[in-house]
Amino acid sequence: MKDFTFVSPTKIYFGKSALSNLSDAIKNYKKVLLVYGQSSIKKLGIYDNVIKQLNAAKMPYFEVSGVRPNPEISKVKDGLKLVRENNIDFVLAIGGGSVIDTAKSICASYYYDGDPFDLNLHKSQVTNALPLGVILTISASGSELSDSCVVMEDATKVKQGFNSDLVRPVFAIMNPEFTYSVDKYQTGCGIVDIISHSLERYFSPSEPLEVCDTLALSIIKDTIEAGKIVIKDPNNYDARAALMLLGSYSHNGLTSLGKQKQMPIHAMEHALSAYDVKIAHGAGLSVLIPAWMKASYKCDINKFARFSRFVFDVKEDNDEKCALKGIDLLRQYFESIGMPVTLHEVNLHKDDISALVDMMIKDDTRLIGQKSINPLNKEAIRKMLEEIL
Amino acid sequence: MKDFTFVSPTKIYFGKSALSNLSDAIKNYKKVLLVYGQSSIKKLGIYDNVIKQLNAAKMPYFEVSGVRPNPEISKVKDGLKLVRENNIDFVLAIGGGSVIDTAKSICASYYYDGDPFDLNLHKSQVTNALPLGVILTISASGSELSDSCVVMEDATKVKQGFNSDLVRPVFAIMNPEFTYSVDKYQTGCGIVDIISHSLERYFSPSEPLEVCDTLALSIIKDTIEAGKIVIKDPNNYDARAALMLLGSYSHNGLTSLGKQKQMPIHAMEHALSAYDVKIAHGAGLSVLIPAWMKASYKCDINKFARFSRFVFDVKEDNDEKCALKGIDLLRQYFESIGMPVTLHEVNLHKDDISALVDMMIKDDTRLIGQKSINPLNKEAIRKMLEEIL
Repeated sequence: MKDFTFVSPTKIYFGKSALSNLSDAIKNYKKVLLVYGQSSIKKLGIYDNVIKQLNAAKMPYFEVSGVRPNPEISKVKDGLKLVRENNIDFVLAIGGGSVIDTAKSICASYYYDGDPFDLNLHKSQVTNALPLGVILTISASGSELSDSCVVMEDATKVKQGFNSDLVRPVFAIMNPEFTYSVDKYQTGCGIVDIISHSLERYFSPSEPLEVCDTLALSIIKDTIEAGKIVIKDPNNYDARAALMLLGSYSHNGLTSLGKQKQMPIHAMEHALSAYDVKIAHGAGLSVLIPAWMKASYKCDINKFARFSRFVFDVKEDNDEKCALKGIDLLRQYFESIGMPVTLHEVNLHKDDISALVDMMIKDDTRLIGQKSINPLNKEAIRKMLEEIL
Repeated sequence: MKDFTFVSPTKIYFGKSALSNLSDAIKNYKKVLLVYGQSSIKKLGIYDNVIKQLNAAKMPYFEVSGVRPNPEISKVKDGLKLVRENNIDFVLAIGGGSVIDTAKSICASYYYDGDPFDLNLHKSQVTNALPLGVILTISASGSELSDSCVVMEDATKVKQGFNSDLVRPVFAIMNPEFTYSVDKYQTGCGIVDIISHSLERYFSPSEPLEVCDTLALSIIKDTIEAGKIVIKDPNNYDARAALMLLGSYSHNGLTSLGKQKQMPIHAMEHALSAYDVKIAHGAGLSVLIPAWMKASYKCDINKFARFSRFVFDVKEDNDEKCALKGIDLLRQYFESIGMPVTLHEVNLHKDDISALVDMMIKDDTRLIGQKSINPLNKEAIRKMLEEIL
């Protein structure tokens, strides 16, 4: 196990009554910026409930709305302007990963004088951040507990993230019922994203007795199980609740404690969904995960076999066969919940591959997942993509 | 899943270099109270390292030492006096569960004018607490991340605990090397305690798709594995590191998120080791765990069978046989690491049983584990104890 520092300070208010805690959770702040996406939070009654609590607390509020998937840095700049002009001291994100990451970017940029995207480009470090609260409406990104913030630069379509404990939310209000209305496709995207967060951590190089590897496998196994139920029965409270909690703990760092986390599939997917913004993050992952696994299992057959046995109870003594069986079962699972597993299904074709590879690796000497079990160069990625046309 | 509120804000500094973070971790405080037990922290060089960092920071410090297992409220009062007389604003516990719980009691009592033990007797609530830091020297109690504080009243030998998020430590410095010198018996006691924290949570009543149940089983399985190695090879870094991390996460609340936690075995053990303070907490648990499981498995055979299959890979289709096999294997495991599994081994005999039962249940109408899968009255406990003479 490697030396590490870890903190996950977010206070979780979970369950059917979670939103009633908002007044108490924000009582120490003076002015709030609401960040949200489309009208769904109004349809669900969340918006009205929030405004009612803010009015009761006589707390002035300002708004940035219309945040979209693959969130744009322009929205961050809009929010930042409001925060600075109005001396806002607290940001409340109501939504999923894109909304939360937009809010995180606002919170961190407040203490930075340059272009907010500099933080994502690692041209500058996060030194401080405004406090952030979250009301979660979709189980997927795990951003409600995580230290990560991924935003896209509108002009260049470069989608990149930074990590800082300073942007971990102060609290997260999580009512599984808020996710009942998430449609089958977006629910599927969320399931794949949750799986991916622990799967990529699990497949990062391990030392003996890595506690977090077992936790990662547990989270993957339970996500698959809860996901099956949610896809068939979207209003199943226990399954929606499980998925919500799994989403948070899959990405808060618990499943990579003491390991060097590598997220090669996420790195490739960010390029994919920036190349074509119509591709949802979870859909891109669904295409890339089995492909990456197929391209990588020989680098650590034993680890892949453990994955298959733990997650899918594969009974197969031969480790290589066992590994391959698990990859197949995961691909079949993605298909069974309506997710794409070929480039064709996300409207990408042979002609796109060169541009895609170039977007994934700008500099020919670089590798995707340099410290992963299978560092990939352009040629390896091209080969991998050609196999999932 | 039940509604819940959860926060585990402790910042973990983990690994060989962990202690070097002390200066930074305490930089915002002015005066510190050190709480520790015997001379072991001096032998290990931890004490000198701490003093060096405090001196370099020109931070005045005071000391309460000699904290023993089954920590006494008199030590809490000693510490509280020092804190009040010297305007101390930070408490640093260096040790294991007894030391940390003594420190927690000091931190919480500071804001209470009555007898500190009132908090443990639930005569009064914790309203605030001084900030607490921990340097951990034994993997066992999980108190370094937990909200619980168990102390014994010297005069009455009543050992009781309270829970409050306010006493969760601000930081925990965890260097697995500090635990190399913990002897085989104390290491075994720690292993049993860690297992017990997740085992009792797992066997608390569940609803469908309880995410925390899988996490609990993962922690139990890995603790058994790491424990085996540590008992044979006390200086095995990876196994000591695994045990340290498992100890923390077994008791911070992660393995009962969304469940009503019931700790009937702990409740009985606190009475056992208060009845005879020579009995270590982990040794008492080791005797009681298999006994409680045997007395309870019929209340939820399916859950016990899942335990056996997950933790010990028991291949047995009949659930009852599978359940019993798992209980046997756990008892054998405890024996294999040198822990007692009969009352006789901890010097308790038939003559002690009546007094013991009375100590466990003071009021005849009460039950141990009232909301557990198997609420126990005096008669049931007596029967259980007679079977492990």
